[in-house]
Amino acid sequence: MADNKKMVEAITSMDVDFAQWYTDVVKKAELCDYASVKGCMVIKPAGYAIWENIQNELDRRFKETGVQNVYMPIFIPESLLEKEKDHVEGFAPEVAWVTHGGLEPLQERMCVRPTSETLFCDFYAKDIHSYRDLPRVYNQWCSVVRWEKTTRPFLRSREFLWQEGHTAHATAEEAEARTIQMLNVYAAFCEEVLAIPVIKGQKTDKEKFAGAEATYTIESLMHDGKALQSGTSHNFGDGFAKAFDIQFTDKDNTLKYVHQTSWGMTTRMIGALIMVHGDDNGLVLPPRIAPVQVMIVPVQQQKEGVLDKAFQLEDRLKKAGFSVKTDDSEKSPGWKFADCEMRGIPLRVEIGPKDMEKNQAVLVRRDTHEKSFISLDELETKVSEMLDTIQKAMYDKAKAHRDSHTYEAVEWDGFVDTINNKPGFVKAMWCGCQECEDKIKEETGATSRCMPFEQENLSDTCICCKKPAKKMVYWGRAY
Amino acid sequence: MADNKKMVEAITSMDVDFAQWYTDVVKKAELCDYASVKGCMVIKPAGYAIWENIQNELDRRFKETGVQNVYMPIFIPESLLEKEKDHVEGFAPEVAWVTHGGLEPLQERMCVRPTSETLFCDFYAKDIHSYRDLPRVYNQWCSVVRWEKTTRPFLRSREFLWQEGHTAHATAEEAEARTIQMLNVYAAFCEEVLAIPVIKGQKTDKEKFAGAEATYTIESLMHDGKALQSGTSHNFGDGFAKAFDIQFTDKDNTLKYVHQTSWGMTTRMIGALIMVHGDDNGLVLPPRIAPVQVMIVPVQQQKEGVLDKAFQLEDRLKKAGFSVKTDDSEKSPGWKFADCEMRGIPLRVEIGPKDMEKNQAVLVRRDTHEKSFISLDELETKVSEMLDTIQKAMYDKAKAHRDSHTYEAVEWDGFVDTINNKPGFVKAMWCGCQECEDKIKEETGATSRCMPFEQENLSDTCICCKKPAKKMVYWGRAY
Repeated sequence: MADNKKMVEAITSMDVDFAQWYTDVVKKAELCDYASVKGCMVIKPAGYAIWENIQNELDRRFKETGVQNVYMPIFIPESLLEKEKDHVEGFAPEVAWVTHGGLEPLQERMCVRPTSETLFCDFYAKDIHSYRDLPRVYNQWCSVVRWEKTTRPFLRSREFLWQEGHTAHATAEEAEARTIQMLNVYAAFCEEVLAIPVIKGQKTDKEKFAGAEATYTIESLMHDGKALQSGTSHNFGDGFAKAFDIQFTDKDNTLKYVHQTSWGMTTRMIGALIMVHGDDNGLVLPPRIAPVQVMIVPVQQQKEGVLDKAFQLEDRLKKAGFSVKTDDSEKSPGWKFADCEMRGIPLRVEIGPKDMEKNQAVLVRRDTHEKSFISLDELETKVSEMLDTIQKAMYDKAKAHRDSHTYEAVEWDGFVDTINNKPGFVKAMWCGCQECEDKIKEETGATSRCMPFEQENLSDTCICCKKPAKKMVYWGRAY
Repeated sequence: MADNKKMVEAITSMDVDFAQWYTDVVKKAELCDYASVKGCMVIKPAGYAIWENIQNELDRRFKETGVQNVYMPIFIPESLLEKEKDHVEGFAPEVAWVTHGGLEPLQERMCVRPTSETLFCDFYAKDIHSYRDLPRVYNQWCSVVRWEKTTRPFLRSREFLWQEGHTAHATAEEAEARTIQMLNVYAAFCEEVLAIPVIKGQKTDKEKFAGAEATYTIESLMHDGKALQSGTSHNFGDGFAKAFDIQFTDKDNTLKYVHQTSWGMTTRMIGALIMVHGDDNGLVLPPRIAPVQVMIVPVQQQKEGVLDKAFQLEDRLKKAGFSVKTDDSEKSPGWKFADCEMRGIPLRVEIGPKDMEKNQAVLVRRDTHEKSFISLDELETKVSEMLDTIQKAMYDKAKAHRDSHTYEAVEWDGFVDTINNKPGFVKAMWCGCQECEDKIKEETGATSRCMPFEQENLSDTCICCKKPAKKMVYWGRAY
């Protein structure tokens, strides 16, 4: 790749400065840009196309489970935000307040939604009357605003795009089942489509969502060994229902409170894709989420018939259902190769006069840079096989990285040493009290990522206070 | 239909009170609801599913013309909004102002976007350098906020959903061509998919977009004879480019300003669907936009085999690519029929024991209530033909209504009389000066809807001042 690298301006090596490498990839792959609006993103076509694919695939999976999409207002009156005590405490410090409409001051100020529990509750209180009205399994795609002090593209910004599901159920059991069901949808989506392995588990009380009884999470590990919370699903029990008076008449003719859930996934998953799969040549996209799966690069395209042949291959691959483009620009093949790499296009098909003579094309994998020669008679089959191979290899590689960066600790010094010197997850036992969590965060910068569903008994005592352990926890520094 | 009407709570007849009929349909068809947030909508599943279909179909048509989707910030700093003089004058009085982020007052207040020209311009100024960077043909799907005083669901609300396209071009000619191209996309979409005939034309200076050189529009006519602006496309020339300093180096190595356009269509088209096609039984949706195209209603469903047969038909129709549901609820067939009607489902398939004996089903059209009996062997073909027939019939009916409610006037008294007594479009000649437009609006409540591309010479003098006429104009009262 040395030759190709010269063709495009080099990016910082990830081993030299991971944060700068990330910024370089975001910029050079043209995913997003900073706006004049401090802390907000301009999501550019290449970045937004990834988000559209995330939306389409998630939305399809949601609807298979009975989800219906709706749209709630962008504003929340202050009195509505304040109805649930924990919720307002969690969000009020980081919302944007609207105080004037047109030339007039508002009678009551409103915030731009940081999340929409209060709006859905307000609606459900008016709209749900009977057990026949349940369950409600609603979702919306929108942007939300949280007034963050420090921001990074896709990972933490004052405005981001997401979906937020909000459901209401007749029983606690049904709400819990839906909470877990949606966590499983997120996990399957991450692993099958984004090729990102995840740990499923529950958040500690300290880390759970403001107003939730239980928050479940999927946690993934970035290339630099830092964790990323990748999707959360909350069971509210009947806490919001009581605060908003959402009652229904059950079959037994008694009034009961509904049980609620909410769950969300955001544009930060684009950041996860970059940081799990990217390399020093740029972005690497899994075929199932890549807006362009195959780029055809004609070699010696000025020679008669080469461009025609390239377009012919493009047509064949399009008909076979692949997302494919031909780079017929005036740039050199070397420049085009490097450009494909920077943009993370999973598979490159090179075709030149010599290949045409032999009725062949060259396939080059983005993930491994491996070259192979295929007969044009087998184009569709081979491209299909290769994309499947890449998808699987990317998942396997990410999982191997995650597994080799997951450590165990059974005593305090080893725990601190691992956190400080071996970036990754550290599994360790915990007594269940927040004092230990606080101390761990203070002394190491690591937070509890989750109490995984798959528990192990590493020892009988808390890594911090040595009191009897209640849970095995994944700890780590996180984005 | 008398029997069925009894089954559901009746709605106001459109001839008695059109505004109340509209509100009733919005409510009973469960399209949207009022929120606790004054002037904002909660778009419910049945309404949002229509919007999703509008999005999918429009987005596909956009992308065929080379449009790329992006996402710009939700906020506009006041100084950015103020950069283009006409634009800020047009929008500043109706924006929502954010003055606080979290607990801190902002150094500069920001508005929630009422439209995003200024954000796109700010981005283009930084991102466009050379003729190689042109054209830029970007679009975003989002919500916008305009602080309206009086609101109506879908037609005028403080927040609505839309798409806004924003393009930059090297030449004035190319910008003009794109402006017209997108107007044509809107017109074709309305006529082919929504079955709503439109008049294409140009807005007068008084009615054009704040900051535009020229605004083109498609205008449709509602059942009550009032007009609805259904989509607009603006050519900005280089006005915004000069205000925001968006320059590029052209092939001849000189610096030039770009030429820009913008174009948008909104959730008010759901209002148009209601008011163009609806009747006293409720909503009537054209098959090509209906979230549910076919509802199967089992008759005597407690009899053995009936429900199985219904689900079998549902499966067959799903496999054939139709959007279909079966109403297997405990309600009576009569109630189900009326419910299908209220929700505007284009085609109802009834199947009962007697039909099964005869290997037949009953098809009932929503638009005409016509019944027909078909052999189950021909189910897919007949349903397909029937949906095509309905789509065409709905367009023809809407066009006949529009044509029969389009009048001509050549002298003032006749003009005023027509506006006052014959709801619809009135075609009349105009001298081109705003005084006459103002006088017409003041004395009749009618506004100039557009100067149609298809001009006719009805007379040589202005309907208002009798000076020489410049343009034939469609006039009408409008939503």
